[in-house]
Amino acid sequence: MRRCIATVSLSGMLREKLQAAAAARFDGVEIFENDLLQFPGTPRDVRRIADDLGLTIDLFQPFRDFDGVSPAQLLRNLERAERKFDVMQELGAPLILVCTNAQPSASGDIALLAEQMHQLAERAALRGLRIGYEALAWAPKINHYWQAWEVVQKADHPHLGLVLDSFHTLALRDDPLPIAQLPGEKIFFLQLADAPWIDTDVLSHSRHYRCFPGQGEFEMAKFTAAVIDAGYTGPLSLEIFNDEFRAAPARPTAADAMRSLRWLEEQVRGVTSLKTGLPLAENRRVSLFDPPAPPQLQGWSFVEFAVDAASAERLAAMLHTIGFQKIGRHRSKAVDLYGQGEVRVVLNLEEDSFARSYFETHGVSACATALATTDALAALGRAEALGCTRMAGRVGQNELTIPAVRAPDGSLLYFFDVHSGGEHGFEADFVLEENRSADTAFGDKARIDHIVQVLPTGQVEPWTLFYRAVLGLQPTPAVVMNDPYGIIKSRVVASREREVRYALNVSERASTSTARTVSQFGGAGVQQIAVAVPDLVATARRLKRQGASLLPVPGNYYDDLVAKYDIEPALLAAMREFGIFYDRTADGELLQLYTTPFDDRFFFGIIERRGNYQDYGVANAPFSLAALAQWRDSQH
Amino acid sequence: MRRCIATVSLSGMLREKLQAAAAARFDGVEIFENDLLQFPGTPRDVRRIADDLGLTIDLFQPFRDFDGVSPAQLLRNLERAERKFDVMQELGAPLILVCTNAQPSASGDIALLAEQMHQLAERAALRGLRIGYEALAWAPKINHYWQAWEVVQKADHPHLGLVLDSFHTLALRDDPLPIAQLPGEKIFFLQLADAPWIDTDVLSHSRHYRCFPGQGEFEMAKFTAAVIDAGYTGPLSLEIFNDEFRAAPARPTAADAMRSLRWLEEQVRGVTSLKTGLPLAENRRVSLFDPPAPPQLQGWSFVEFAVDAASAERLAAMLHTIGFQKIGRHRSKAVDLYGQGEVRVVLNLEEDSFARSYFETHGVSACATALATTDALAALGRAEALGCTRMAGRVGQNELTIPAVRAPDGSLLYFFDVHSGGEHGFEADFVLEENRSADTAFGDKARIDHIVQVLPTGQVEPWTLFYRAVLGLQPTPAVVMNDPYGIIKSRVVASREREVRYALNVSERASTSTARTVSQFGGAGVQQIAVAVPDLVATARRLKRQGASLLPVPGNYYDDLVAKYDIEPALLAAMREFGIFYDRTADGELLQLYTTPFDDRFFFGIIERRGNYQDYGVANAPFSLAALAQWRDSQH
Repeated sequence: MRRCIATVSLSGMLREKLQAAAAARFDGVEIFENDLLQFPGTPRDVRRIADDLGLTIDLFQPFRDFDGVSPAQLLRNLERAERKFDVMQELGAPLILVCTNAQPSASGDIALLAEQMHQLAERAALRGLRIGYEALAWAPKINHYWQAWEVVQKADHPHLGLVLDSFHTLALRDDPLPIAQLPGEKIFFLQLADAPWIDTDVLSHSRHYRCFPGQGEFEMAKFTAAVIDAGYTGPLSLEIFNDEFRAAPARPTAADAMRSLRWLEEQVRGVTSLKTGLPLAENRRVSLFDPPAPPQLQGWSFVEFAVDAASAERLAAMLHTIGFQKIGRHRSKAVDLYGQGEVRVVLNLEEDSFARSYFETHGVSACATALATTDALAALGRAEALGCTRMAGRVGQNELTIPAVRAPDGSLLYFFDVHSGGEHGFEADFVLEENRSADTAFGDKARIDHIVQVLPTGQVEPWTLFYRAVLGLQPTPAVVMNDPYGIIKSRVVASREREVRYALNVSERASTSTARTVSQFGGAGVQQIAVAVPDLVATARRLKRQGASLLPVPGNYYDDLVAKYDIEPALLAAMREFGIFYDRTADGELLQLYTTPFDDRFFFGIIERRGNYQDYGVANAPFSLAALAQWRDSQH
Repeated sequence: MRRCIATVSLSGMLREKLQAAAAARFDGVEIFENDLLQFPGTPRDVRRIADDLGLTIDLFQPFRDFDGVSPAQLLRNLERAERKFDVMQELGAPLILVCTNAQPSASGDIALLAEQMHQLAERAALRGLRIGYEALAWAPKINHYWQAWEVVQKADHPHLGLVLDSFHTLALRDDPLPIAQLPGEKIFFLQLADAPWIDTDVLSHSRHYRCFPGQGEFEMAKFTAAVIDAGYTGPLSLEIFNDEFRAAPARPTAADAMRSLRWLEEQVRGVTSLKTGLPLAENRRVSLFDPPAPPQLQGWSFVEFAVDAASAERLAAMLHTIGFQKIGRHRSKAVDLYGQGEVRVVLNLEEDSFARSYFETHGVSACATALATTDALAALGRAEALGCTRMAGRVGQNELTIPAVRAPDGSLLYFFDVHSGGEHGFEADFVLEENRSADTAFGDKARIDHIVQVLPTGQVEPWTLFYRAVLGLQPTPAVVMNDPYGIIKSRVVASREREVRYALNVSERASTSTARTVSQFGGAGVQQIAVAVPDLVATARRLKRQGASLLPVPGNYYDDLVAKYDIEPALLAAMREFGIFYDRTADGELLQLYTTPFDDRFFFGIIERRGNYQDYGVANAPFSLAALAQWRDSQH
């Protein structure tokens, strides 16, 4: 299907919006009127710029408060419309979006509205233009698509049709399925917007919180499928009002927009047509994007840190105190491998490498993570299809080639194929140490449970879409955590079987410890590698013995635990001794402790999940964040 | 009355919160439980710190989900309470806040609740502690103060009373007046929080948007007066959950908190007692803060810019092009006076002066504004009473002493007494030019209409309170404006007769032109001096003739104006020629144009208000902000 984007979805002035849309390979645009009014040139100039960029102008929008007015006002509104028709002809825009009247005084009389819309369509027809009528969710009278459809049906004019917008329907929790029964050719245009569920009025919801499909919580595939099932074959067009997008550079936003539509099309393919009983992928009147399926993930093969010689020594020392052993050296590169249980950490000291340039701009930090998957080339194929850039490093003779793409912050995401010797098969590239003790602090079965990434403000939506589209992870609703020096917003994305989960955290202000993970160097950053162990108390005891620096937790925290829960005294004493946080739900229990941060930037979490506990201990966040702040304060 | 603050209202760890509260001269604190749990020491240590700082601990809070439970759960809850009583005794906190049960399963049976609260009060009494019962606005059953009162009344225990919180009552739009009929001695504690009206659920409203009295839109004086009228004589205590305050330094926030209570007490003085028919100022059982009355303002006497020699020359050249004349030189300092109509601009080049140090940290910017008032010393007295710092500069012989205080960003606010020769009486300190032409571009009657200040994120609340408390200005609700590169939030504060009005603007992100006014140098900054002239077209014509650089406005803007409004062709042509924006309401019309910015940081707006138009042309903001962005782009 053709893919369009409304200029209001992108930041900046009209020319750069059009350039960004073209660079992201959109076919056409909706011109949002304010963008035109701000443009220092004529509508004809806009037409020329769009032509040069290979963009069609599919829609001019919005035209407000036209319908349901007095006869005298109608004449003035028709006059106003003629002026906009002039503009459309210069723009080469064949269709104008007329949204239902938002004035309290507007009439809701279907016959009157139909009559007035008919008059407008007549005027448009004289110029060869078309009118798309859209029900605004906050209009006082006509706010559902089916009401707008009654008007369009009654007006019965070939130049008058419907514009549908997923936001207006889904925000009101209106059922989209009956849309499938509308005549597709009377749906003139389809606007798509997702959004998180936020408890506010629908107008604010629309103006500030819309986001690209896949970034929010609306049932986008169900809605879009219904429209296609109706027989709609026009463009899929994104119309997003979002405060963060307004402040973000236009080009990455446009690239996200394209990723979002491709992902959505894939979701729609699988929806069953109410008319044919077949998946919509079989609908031969439209072409829906068909990327390789999401990868089957089996956890992380390794996490790679960018270091130089001096910081490598410090980081290695820290890894040793928490039980990691050096288990190998790369055959051809200055790359060391550390391991413990199933966890692998790579320190990349290689000069003239990606890691080195990452180190130079970001300092000591995780520059790459490797996911273990059953078909790495298919994973790479999907990632590329969904707009990722493939990266190729230097590979020595007889060494493995591990496919990789760039994540949104420029770090690398490797796909390691488990058919190359299991999830640790990459160790074939390393000369392994011979004397490895199996007896480690974390224990044999230790695995990475989840990774906490800190994102710059405004980056949650792009990363959510990246993980959802590229890896097929599922997002959960955002939560707010209180740091002593500001709030942290957190959203988890996880694979279906939870082999891979990321917590995406944002510090709204620079005053928190969390902000330090990103603030100095820009880009996102891994703040925590959370390792699940079978017996956290035993692990803690061993860590303490071998001199690990664990984050201290105030005694008052445990006095409160006692008041809240029955906890067996020996466990409580151990938690108090080692600084273990505790959470309990109906499903089970969580024990968690933290190492003190390395360079104030990242640390290990060590957790034990008991029963079927699947959360992240967010109830403890105020205390762990405070402990972090307190520790930092004690160091400076 | 005693003044308290809940530790949750301030950023940081418990010790710095207590230090900030003491430094701001609070008498006592509420200890928010999470702050204690995060504290790396015992409750006794907290007691000692508070003692050393001269702070009482008046309340420990909150104790949740106690009431309306099964008998078995009640026993567990009483046990939990005993643990908290232990803590209270160590803290030396005589009172605990028990909020009504927020669990869906909780009972709303008044008899049952009274019986359970009675049991709790019995336990507390054994230790000499007291229980304050507070209706949570989002509790499913007991969410109004009068329901909590029914429970307290029925429980009838001397150690059980009410805690009232303005937020819980006002957010539900509950009538506070009947509170005056409660027995004052059964109100154990009063928590105060203001908030803006936001369309969201009451829990989110409470957790993220509370602010200090005077910063929001709630009827704080009415509520507080009712409680005092009931006979309450306990502390006034602030309990504020606010995302921005969490990220702001604790000390200025605590100083704002104190300013807020003092201001509120003054407002309460004037409220008539429902019991005595006299103003509450006459209630001899409480002492309410009584500062000098707000000043009568007569506009601005001058705006002072911090410059050095090179920038002074450039700024003077710019002032000349827009019709300002140099009208004097200070008798003893390197300070030049420029004027036009009633507008006065001072360029301060004096070395070793406040202006010079301001220049060094902020660059060319308005370092001081002078308000004309009928009693400058009373204005100064009020400002000091409300927490401002008085500033004294160097004064030469026979020169005027102009009282001044520091504004929240460190710039100066002068109070010029109009009895010293009218609002321009300060010119007595200048050697005035003899050849002054009365014939200026702005015209004789030109006056400063309003000043637009750009504030760093999170600073709207402090500045609103500063202007409201110190100058008696009235705030209006915030609006959102769309810059092409991000959103701008704007709130206007104005004197009753509108002689003085400030627009307080915040750019949430660094990407906008607006952000440049503050981002490079920190602090707030004057972005626009808006001058009202009697005939804007005439002014524009003269400005153009004398080479002023006016902000260009795209022709498309005018094409849209024509479609929207009947505008007489000559006026329209002039607007198009000079780049004049236009707005119309039921009250009148606004014409406005802008000079291009000086150093990308500030500019003059020139406006003409027709009829009784009293707004600021916010409908034109997307176009003026885009024109600004476009202009900036064209320069770089």
